[in-house]
Formats: sequence, structure tokens, C-alpha cells
Amino acid sequence: MTRLQINQDLKALNNQIAVENREKFAAHNVYVINIMGSPGAGKTTFLENILPKLSLELRVAVIEGDLATQNDALRIEKTGVQALQINTAGGCHLDAKMIKNQLSKLDLDVLDLLIIENVGNLVCPAAWDLGEDQRMVILSVAEGEDKPAKYPIAFLKADTAVITKTDLLPFIDTDVNVMKKYIAEINPKVQVFTTALKDGEYEADQVVQYIREAVRRKQCR
Amino acid sequence: MTRLQINQDLKALNNQIAVENREKFAAHNVYVINIMGSPGAGKTTFLENILPKLSLELRVAVIEGDLATQNDALRIEKTGVQALQINTAGGCHLDAKMIKNQLSKLDLDVLDLLIIENVGNLVCPAAWDLGEDQRMVILSVAEGEDKPAKYPIAFLKADTAVITKTDLLPFIDTDVNVMKKYIAEINPKVQVFTTALKDGEYEADQVVQYIREAVRRKQCR
Repeated sequence: MTRLQINQDLKALNNQIAVENREKFAAHNVYVINIMGSPGAGKTTFLENILPKLSLELRVAVIEGDLATQNDALRIEKTGVQALQINTAGGCHLDAKMIKNQLSKLDLDVLDLLIIENVGNLVCPAAWDLGEDQRMVILSVAEGEDKPAKYPIAFLKADTAVITKTDLLPFIDTDVNVMKKYIAEINPKVQVFTTALKDGEYEADQVVQYIREAVRRKQCR
Repeated sequence: MTRLQINQDLKALNNQIAVENREKFAAHNVYVINIMGSPGAGKTTFLENILPKLSLELRVAVIEGDLATQNDALRIEKTGVQALQINTAGGCHLDAKMIKNQLSKLDLDVLDLLIIENVGNLVCPAAWDLGEDQRMVILSVAEGEDKPAKYPIAFLKADTAVITKTDLLPFIDTDVNVMKKYIAEINPKVQVFTTALKDGEYEADQVVQYIREAVRRKQCR
């Protein structure tokens, strides 16, 4: 049995469970976003920023994936949003079964939106379907403008990308327009937004609006 | 066959090739460093900084691991150091066989130091022995102080850690002493250094000195 075959078998099993998850989310009218990005890209900070705005109109829950610690779930709970923490104990990505195992802890009937923050890793999570409706890649300007070109797979399968920490641009060599150009070259369909750490929120409100509309579109189908 | 069993078999095969690599490096008196860290942690920039200093006294070559592009090998070659590029085509880490396959392209008899820059990923590379003498984790202050706690495996197996981009500290909430405390809690044996992007080189010279001494120790054994 080759390594390729083994991987294909694991992926096939995962995809089957992802289909079941997707059917379950559809049956309960829950829109699901799978967020991925490097460690420290700003995924949790971005959620802390947008969750208070999203939860004004939508009923939201978050699943946090990390190798270790409850840090991120605790941070999310401070925004008033329910958060479940998965610890992968070394695993480099979430898979559909891990998500399925969490669903009994959520009342899907009273949810509009489920956000899954994947393990911090710009490589592996992209290969594993969780049953989501939208894939979002979070990328910090501090990572450097060439990262989409060097890690293309996450962007190939993304629907949205959020470029974070743009208030660091004056202090580093990253050109955010070059970063956007690389993303567009890999996948011109990716909707790209920018946000900052402190000085202004840039397009965070546009992301909130984009997510709200996507949720409504699913619910009105 | 369980997934765990499959992983154990792949690891066992990898470890066997890593042993062969290590024996080959020892026979040629070549010291090997395996550098790992997130995308954008500053691994290549750090190498661009230290290679001109290292190559004053040592004969150095670099193997670059990336999913895609020749970007990093081209950057390294500009420092005058020989660089080989491995593209993993989606693979999330280097393995011992990939390194073995590159060794025929290097004249080990005229090398003192081989530096391997792994795929940008704070999770997977830590699990794969390449035959190295030293493991170095590179971590940017922009990633946030809690990353060692959230991604402990890389630090558990590290010998050295280099905290980069410290000139961004005035603009972000990271406390570098807390970051160091987390590293020490996971593995008190890790030798920690700090460096900056532009404003001063902080402890880059100490890293160069540390590497030089490690190479000499191996060669005088």
C-alpha cells in the first residue's frame, strides 16, 4: 500500500463525513466558515473584532482548533459567543470527524453561523473538507508579500482572504498590492479584504457585511 | 490498518533514512542545522543576515524547502552561498529521503555546515528527523507571545530558538519575555536568541558564534 493510496483513503473517508456535515448544516440552515492561516496570522484577533458585530444580527458559535491550550476558546467566550475548543494533540489540521464529534454540543436549530478556526498552519488544513460553505484564509502583512505564491494551495481553494495587521506596513518591506496580485494570480475569484491591529478597522465592516449576506443567501435558498 | 499504524510505519522508514543521513554527515564532518517555523517567521531573512558572517570562517551550503517557487534559493544564492531548492508540491514538511536525494548534488568533503530551511509550518516538520545535529525554531514577535504554548511540539524538540522582528515590538502587544517564559516552560534547554529586521541586529552575532562553536565541537570530536 503506497503512501499516496493511504492518503487517498483517508481523504475519501474524510470527504464522506464532510458531506454528512454539510447536509446536516443545510438541514438546520447553518452557514459555516472554515478559517485557516499561519500561526499568528491574526485569526483569533480578527474573530474578536468581528464577532460582536456579527452577533448583533446573527446567532453565532465558534469551534477553535489548536494543538494545545484552551486559550482561543477562552478569548472568544469573552465576546459573548459560545466557543468549543478542539485540541488535536499534535495533529496539524482539523478533519470532518472532529467537527462531527462537536455537533452534539451545539443546538444547530438556534444557530445561523458556525465559524471554525482551524489549526494555525498554511499548508495542511487546505486539504481537508470539513463541510463548510466558505473558506477564508487569514494572512498577516508581517508574513511577507510572497507567501501566497509560496503556499498556493490554501488560496487555490479559498473564497475569501483577509490581509491583517496592515498598520505594521510602515515598518516592514511588504507591499500589500503585490500580496493581492499574488492571490489574484493563484485564484482570481478570492474576495480580498484588509484589516489592521489598532489604527482603524479598514475593511472589517465590509467582511461583516459580506458574511451577513452570505448567511442570508443560504437561508433564503 | 489504523492511521496511527500507517504513520508509525512512515516515521520508522523516515528514521532509518535519517540515521543513514546522520552517518554520512558524520563521515564527512558536516554539521547540519534543521530550521523550522511558520510561514513568514523570518527564516530566509535570518539566513540572509547570518550567512555572510558564517561563510567568513565556514564552508556552508543551504537546502531550501517550499511547497512552490524557487524564491528562497535565489535569495540565498545572492549571499554567495550554494543553495538547493526542494519543492514539495503540497507536502507540509521535508523528510529524510528528500534530503538524501539532494546529497549527490553537494560535495560534502568541502562543506563544514549544511543548513536546511524546512517548509514554513510550525507543526509538521517537528515530527520528521532529517539527520540533523541541531534543530532551530524561528518565531516572529508578530506571531504573538502565546505561540510556543499553542504549538509546543516544535519547541519540545528544539535546541535553539530565534525570536525575530523585535523592532516591531513597539507597535504590537507581544511581550517577548512572556514568549521566552513559554519556551522555557516547554523546554528549558532551548537556547534563545533575539534578532530584529532593521534596527540593530541584537543577538545575530551571538547566533553566528554559537553555530561556529557547535560546528567546531563536532569536527574536533
